[in-house]
Order: sequence, then structure tokens, then C-alpha cells
Amino acid sequence: MSHDTLMMGVDAGGTSTRAVLMTTAGACIGYGVGGRGNPLSAGVDAAAEGVLDAITQALVPSGRSLADVSVISAAMAGQNSVDAEGGWLLDLLVTEGFAGRLTFESDLLATYSSGAVEPFGYAVVAGTGASAVRVADGRIESSSDGLGWLLGDRGSGFWIGHRVARAVVRDLDRAGPQTALTGAVLDRLGISADAGAADPGGAGRSRALDRIVEVLYAQRPIELAELAPLAFVPGDRVADEILRRAGEHLADSLTAVLRGRGPLVVGGSVLARPGPVRDAFLRRLGDAATGLELRPVADGAVGAGLLALRAGGAAVSPETLATLDASLARFR
Amino acid sequence: MSHDTLMMGVDAGGTSTRAVLMTTAGACIGYGVGGRGNPLSAGVDAAAEGVLDAITQALVPSGRSLADVSVISAAMAGQNSVDAEGGWLLDLLVTEGFAGRLTFESDLLATYSSGAVEPFGYAVVAGTGASAVRVADGRIESSSDGLGWLLGDRGSGFWIGHRVARAVVRDLDRAGPQTALTGAVLDRLGISADAGAADPGGAGRSRALDRIVEVLYAQRPIELAELAPLAFVPGDRVADEILRRAGEHLADSLTAVLRGRGPLVVGGSVLARPGPVRDAFLRRLGDAATGLELRPVADGAVGAGLLALRAGGAAVSPETLATLDASLARFR
Repeated sequence: MSHDTLMMGVDAGGTSTRAVLMTTAGACIGYGVGGRGNPLSAGVDAAAEGVLDAITQALVPSGRSLADVSVISAAMAGQNSVDAEGGWLLDLLVTEGFAGRLTFESDLLATYSSGAVEPFGYAVVAGTGASAVRVADGRIESSSDGLGWLLGDRGSGFWIGHRVARAVVRDLDRAGPQTALTGAVLDRLGISADAGAADPGGAGRSRALDRIVEVLYAQRPIELAELAPLAFVPGDRVADEILRRAGEHLADSLTAVLRGRGPLVVGGSVLARPGPVRDAFLRRLGDAATGLELRPVADGAVGAGLLALRAGGAAVSPETLATLDASLARFR
Repeated sequence: MSHDTLMMGVDAGGTSTRAVLMTTAGACIGYGVGGRGNPLSAGVDAAAEGVLDAITQALVPSGRSLADVSVISAAMAGQNSVDAEGGWLLDLLVTEGFAGRLTFESDLLATYSSGAVEPFGYAVVAGTGASAVRVADGRIESSSDGLGWLLGDRGSGFWIGHRVARAVVRDLDRAGPQTALTGAVLDRLGISADAGAADPGGAGRSRALDRIVEVLYAQRPIELAELAPLAFVPGDRVADEILRRAGEHLADSLTAVLRGRGPLVVGGSVLARPGPVRDAFLRRLGDAATGLELRPVADGAVGAGLLALRAGGAAVSPETLATLDASLARFR
């Protein structure tokens, strides 16, 4: 068994956590996935479990232990340092045998680093939430949006799902245009589309409207993001308009941080595929788009790994990124 | 002490409850205010307390008891009948000595009846929430919006407060126009307007932005409605635009139920006073506004009283409304 020093990147998100175990040359030798890993949204206990699950799985293929890992870089929104908020994670890792150094990194920088080693560039992340950042000298220099579902996240999965839900209730309330989204959403929520029958107690409202209001308020608001994929079914004017506006909002967030040419790393499912959101995004950017090299990435796992290599003093080149990307791909 | 039969109207809302004790001629002889009275939003225990407080206070001036009351009409959103959902209230009243008849009424019909005895007309209510209704034959025949803060309530106090909050975070995020709302909201929330200072962990964000996000997400979303009054300070382009759109949304909700001339009872604080919301509301209605007679009312207390008189078989004329309105005014 080799006793080379190992490094580990942890990309801890609001819904899942990924851990990447690497040699100092950037070859991935293990990968693990756990549950939600952000203590701010999941609570410390759930986050500890999510992170530990991911780390433990990542160690399995090589049979190595945390004692062999010299650096762990954890990408977590809102966790900036061991001293400030991150003591819980160091305590957890030490209990599991870790004797190396822990660094915290921005989750957005991890996403950027999944697609770019250049010290200057941009990332737009549009999953459940949405934000845009400018990276300079390898650090986040400026950010736009990322303000959460209630105040911002314009163009995000939540934003789209929320607009879908509102378009459907307006259609059922006969206050907005008819849309194919109505049938799709009622179907998805298991509500009978018997929209013509008025509820005797509902002041002329259809039963379907009463029911969808009841069902959607019984959920947590953020769950409206799950309706977003329904908007990607083509051929409906209302859905197309929602996706177009989402793309424009994401472009506006990027524009707020834009300062010249650079790679543009794109994370999250909303902009991942070619289609109406990306079309509107590029159209809105106009000439500015020509100076940007679009690089879609799956998540921040590769980037968290690269940030760990960097924190450990390893040289990081485009080849390192390519090596890590390719070797990690064999584990997913 | 007189032993005439008495009647009582109860207007139970999401934030407070009002009870009106009357003679069968519609003279108010007692008035009480309690806490939140809707079991759907407050829970049955809190609603029972709110209703009981209001009723108990209303009985004090006359020294009469619930045993002397032959009819109670309770206006409560979502409570349609004693058999369906309202058993808790009848049980409560009987325990307190009530031996008469309890009816449930729509809260929107109570608002309408606070300003109109005509069998045909309209009401627009814009407080924390917003909806429009058409009344025909003394019943709610059709309604629009009233779909709650997450899915509708367009033009409501929540809607305005939410837009205010979003405009402020966009200003602080340098992604939207500067607005005087920013200073007003930071002030209101007790946040230092030291917006230039970047938070080292906040990716170039100002501390004020980080702090307002933290404060607003720590609240319940509906509390954003408390920011609505800040938009009514004149002279700010962003605030004016929010109020103009609110007025247009309320007009659109009314338009969805409009079928000819009639009284238009206006409840809630948003449309209560002349100003930019009402101006935009009337402008958007255009010619349709000329057929409507605007009647602002404070709440549904008078209307709940009128509905109780009607339920008890009393004749209800414009004079009855005027009598009740004037006699109740002496208690407020």
C-alpha cells in the first residue's frame, strides 16, 4: 500500500455533498456522495452526517484513512474559516483521525474551478438558486444575486418553478392566459383537472384551484423549484416566456460583474443544456458573449479537488484539471 | 335591564377579530376587539381566544350575556358551515352560554356589507392579502385572486413590501436602480447603512446586503408586508413604480369579475386613501370606473353585523347600514 500524501476536496451543497480523494498529482482515487452538507440550511448534525458519508465512501476504493490526508478543502456557502464558523467540521474530522489542514472555500469558486484554472474569469450557477461571480487572482472578486428564493435568485430553478405555479393559478383563476402548464402541474401534483366544477364554499372558484392552493401552501416554498422542469416542454407560449425571462435575468446578473473577456463556467441544471434559457441568456448578453468561453460543469466536485491541491502547494495547470476531470469521471 | 333579543356580528381576521353587539334595529350597543380569529392561520386555540376576547368585550357596556343573543354571524375566510369546519366555534359559544343560531359568512361578503346593502356590487380588499369579488343576490358570485402571498395577492401589502425588499437588495447588490427605499428599509430594520464596506467573507458584497438578507430570512415571509408603508413616501421613482403596478394589479383582479355598474366597496389599507395606488387603479379601470361608486370601509365589522341582522330575519335597508355605522363609530 502506498503511503503518498493524499488530498481531498469536499463540495458540500444544500441537497448533496461530494468528496474527491486525490494524489498530489491530481489523480482521483476515490469519490463519495452524501446528503446535504451545509450547516446553515441543514443544521450542523445533518451536515456532519452528509459530509462524513461522502468522505467515508471516497476512502473505500483505496483502503486509505483520513490519517493519510494532508489537506482537505471544503467548499460550503457561508462557511469562511475554521475560526469563524467552521470549528464543527475540524472537530468532526479530527475525531475521524484527520491530522492535516482544513481550508474553507467558496462554493462558487469551487464551481468555477471545476471548469477553469485561469486566475480571471466568471461563473454563473443556476440550480435551485442563482448567482454570478467574477474571479480575479483566483479569488471571488465580485458577486451578483445569490440572494435566496424570497429576495433574489432570479432565473433560478425556484424562480422558474414559482412562475410556473403562479401562471397555473392565474389560468385556473381565469385571470391569466390559458397554458399547457396547468395540465402538467395538476398532473404532477396528483390533482384532478376537473376545473369546471365550482366549489360551493369557494366563492366561484374551481375545485382544482382550491386544491392546488392547498397543496402548494402545504409544501415548503423552495419545493416550487421541482416544477421548473415542466417549463422546458416546448410549444407553450407562457412556458416559453418564463424561460426567456429566466435567461435574461441570468444574463443581467452576469452583466453586473462583467469586466472583459474570460472563461465562463456554467453550473446547475437551468443553463446546462442548449435551449430557450441559454438562447435568451446569450441573446441578452449580445456582443459581450463573444468574449466568453462557455464551459458547463456538473458541480463543484472537481473544483473543490483543485482548490485542495492548490491549498496543499501542488502546481495546478490545465493538465491537472483535465487529469482530475477524467479520473473522477471513472467513479461517477 | 331590557330583555330584547340581541344579535352579534363577528369579523374574524388573520391579525385581529371584531365583535359587534346590536339590537334587532341595528343599533350597536357594544364592540370588542380580540387577537387573530381565523383557525386556518392561527390554529383553533388561538382563534378561540381571539374570538372570545372580542365577544366578551362587546357584552360589557350593556351588561348582557351570550344567553340573550339569538343570532351570531361569524365572517371567517375558509369557514363555511358549522357542519363542515365550524363545530369548534359553536362548541365554544355554547360553553359560554349561547343558545341561539350561529351562521358562517364569507369575510369578503362582510367587507362588502360594511359599505353596501345592494344585492349586486363589488368589493376589492387589499390589506396584507388582496382579492376582488362580485356580489349578486347578496352572495359572492365570483372572486379573483386572494391566492395568498406565495401564489397571488397581487397588489396587496405583502406584494408591495416584497417588491420594496427586492428593490432594496438589488440596489445594495448594484444590480438595480438606486432608491430612497434602501435607506428607509435599512433604518426600519436597524441595519447600519455602511453599504460601502465589503464583507471579507461575502464575495464583494456589502455588509449591509449580507445583514439585510440575514434579517429578512429570519422573519416569516408574510412579515415583508410591514415594509409596504415605506413605499408610500413620495418622490422616489422605484417606490412610485411599485405602487403604480400594485394599483394596476388590483384593477386587473377587479376587471376579472366585472359585469356592469354597481357599488365598489374598498377594504384594507392599500386602497384606503387617495394616492398613487388608487390613481393607478382608477386609470387602469378606465371607462369601467365611471360605473362604480367607490366606498372605502374600515373592515368587515359593520358588514358582519348586517349579515347577522339578515340571518335573524331583520329588514336591512340603507338606513339600517347608516344606523349601525354611526352607532358603532361611537365605540371605536
